[in-house]
Amino acid sequence: MSTIPSTVRITEVGPRDGLQNQPGTIPTDVKVRLVDALSASRPAEIEVSSFVSPKWVPQLADAADLLARIKRVPGIVYSVLVPNMQGLEGALQAEVEKISVFTAASETFNRRNVNATIDESIVRFVPVIAEAKKAGKQIRGYISCAIACPYEGPVDPQQVAEVSRHLVDAGVDEIDLGDTIGVAVPSDIDRLYDAVGTVVEPAATTLHMHDTRGTGLACIVRAMELGVARFDCSVGGLGGCPYAPGAAGNIATEDVVYCLHRMGIDTGIDFDQLIEAGRVIAAHLAGEGRSLPGRMFNARCAAQGLP
Amino acid sequence: MSTIPSTVRITEVGPRDGLQNQPGTIPTDVKVRLVDALSASRPAEIEVSSFVSPKWVPQLADAADLLARIKRVPGIVYSVLVPNMQGLEGALQAEVEKISVFTAASETFNRRNVNATIDESIVRFVPVIAEAKKAGKQIRGYISCAIACPYEGPVDPQQVAEVSRHLVDAGVDEIDLGDTIGVAVPSDIDRLYDAVGTVVEPAATTLHMHDTRGTGLACIVRAMELGVARFDCSVGGLGGCPYAPGAAGNIATEDVVYCLHRMGIDTGIDFDQLIEAGRVIAAHLAGEGRSLPGRMFNARCAAQGLP
Repeated sequence: MSTIPSTVRITEVGPRDGLQNQPGTIPTDVKVRLVDALSASRPAEIEVSSFVSPKWVPQLADAADLLARIKRVPGIVYSVLVPNMQGLEGALQAEVEKISVFTAASETFNRRNVNATIDESIVRFVPVIAEAKKAGKQIRGYISCAIACPYEGPVDPQQVAEVSRHLVDAGVDEIDLGDTIGVAVPSDIDRLYDAVGTVVEPAATTLHMHDTRGTGLACIVRAMELGVARFDCSVGGLGGCPYAPGAAGNIATEDVVYCLHRMGIDTGIDFDQLIEAGRVIAAHLAGEGRSLPGRMFNARCAAQGLP
Repeated sequence: MSTIPSTVRITEVGPRDGLQNQPGTIPTDVKVRLVDALSASRPAEIEVSSFVSPKWVPQLADAADLLARIKRVPGIVYSVLVPNMQGLEGALQAEVEKISVFTAASETFNRRNVNATIDESIVRFVPVIAEAKKAGKQIRGYISCAIACPYEGPVDPQQVAEVSRHLVDAGVDEIDLGDTIGVAVPSDIDRLYDAVGTVVEPAATTLHMHDTRGTGLACIVRAMELGVARFDCSVGGLGGCPYAPGAAGNIATEDVVYCLHRMGIDTGIDFDQLIEAGRVIAAHLAGEGRSLPGRMFNARCAAQGLP
C-alpha cells in the first residue's frame, strides 16, 4: 500500500478515443461543448482529436476546427494524435502543447492499422518527433496491443519492452501502454511491468485501459501498486470496441476518479464538473437512442433523478 | 501475490438478489430455465430465492414452486433467504441445503428493511438458526451495509465486526459482508478486514459486492490479497440498485470469473455455460426492452455476433 502514488495524472481521451469508436459522427459544436465542459473539470490533459486522414477516421475530420473553437484553460495540456508529417503540420498550426505518435506491440495489428511493420512505423516517426521537439512540443508514444492483439492473441511483454525501448530511443517523452481490446487482468499488469520496467520507470509510463470485460479499474489499482501514476480514461466510458461492436470501450473517467478520490489519491479533477461534461455528450447520444456505459456516471445521474 | 487463493468459491445470487432488484416479475418458467442453465455452469452455490412475505418481495413469491421445479445438480448447494420461522418452514419443505438469515451493520437500514434493531433481528434469528441446525442445514448470516448505508453514510468497520461477532455467537456458519449500495473501493476493503479479521478469518467470510460505481472487481482482487476466497456474483450483472434506480447492481459473475480464471484461480465454473445462462435471462429482458449490464457478458455476445 505504501507504494501507491498520492497524486495521479489523468488524461481525458473521450473526445479522441471515445468519439473515434462511437458509431456515427458528432457535430463539432457538441464536441466544443464537451471539451469545454471537460476543461472545467480540470484533468491534467485532454486528448482533443487526431490529425489522421479523414478517409481513415471521418469521426475526427473536424480536428482543426474543433481546436480553433475550444476555450483552452491554462494548466491543462491539450494534445492530439499525429500519424505523420502532414498530421504534425496540422497539430502545429492548431498550436497544441503535445502530440502523440502511435505504433503497436503486434505486427499484425500495426500492419492492419497503419500498413507498416512496427519498425517501419517507428522509423517513419523519427522526423516527426525531431520536428515536434524543435517546435518545443511534448511527445507521447502509444503502444497498442500491450496485452493482447485481436488478431494474434496474447502479446509477449518482452515485445512491449522492446518497442518501448525503440520509442524512447526515437525521443518520445512518455510511453503509453494500451490494452486496446480490454482483456487485461491484474496479473497481466504485473507481467507487463516486469518487462517494461527494465526499460522505463513505471512512473514514466501511462496506462490506457479499456473496460471491455470489466477489469479496467482492478488493473489500474494494481498498476498504482507498481508505481504507475498516469492513466487514460474516457468521460462516461464514451466509446466502444471496434473488435466487439456493442461492448464497452475505454475505462470511464468517473469510475477511476471516484475510486482514486475515495482512496485518498488526488487527481485535481472536479468530480461534479466531470459529471456535467458527461451529461453534455449523454444528452446528444440520447437523441440517437444511445447511452453512456460508465457505471459511476449512471449511478450519479440516477441518484440525482437526472436522465 | 503469494497470499492469493488458488481456488475461489462463487455463489450465484442472480436468481435471488438480481431478480429481487429488477423492476417487474419474471415468470416462474423463465426462472426455472435460468436456474437450470446456471446449474449447468456449476457454481459452488446458487441462491435460488427467498421465503420472505410476498407482500414485501412479490418478485420472489414463487420460491416454493421454483424450488420444486428446478433440476438440482449434485455438488451444487442450493440456498434461500429466510427472515423468520415461517420462512424456515418453507425452506425446510423445499429441502434446500442452506439458509441465509440477514441483518445489517446500520441501525437505520435494518429498521427500514426488517422493522427491528440489529440486536432484535439477531435475537429473532436464534430459534431459526437452532431449528435449521437441528435439520442439518448450513447457515449463512448476511450483514448488509458493511461499507456504507444509504441513510447513514459510511459505516464503522468496528460495527461490522461487532455484528459479525453476534452472528457467530448465534451459530451461523458463514458471515456474508454486503456492500449493499456499491460504494466500496479497495482501501475500504482493507479497513473492513482489519476490523472483521479480529472476529473471523477472512477465508471464512463471503464478500458480496455491488458494482454500482464500477469498483466491485477491484475490491474483490484486493480482498483476495487479504485471503478472502468466497464471493457472491450475479449472472450478467442481473439486478439493480433500489437506492439509485437505473444504476448497476450486483457484480457480474462473468466479469469475476473471467478475471479469476485469467489470473490462474479456479472457480469450477464452466464459462461458456455461464454465458448460456445469461442468454436465458437476457432473451427474456430483451422482450421488455431491457438488457443486462455485465461487461464481459456483453463483450462475449458481441464477439460472437449474438443479440
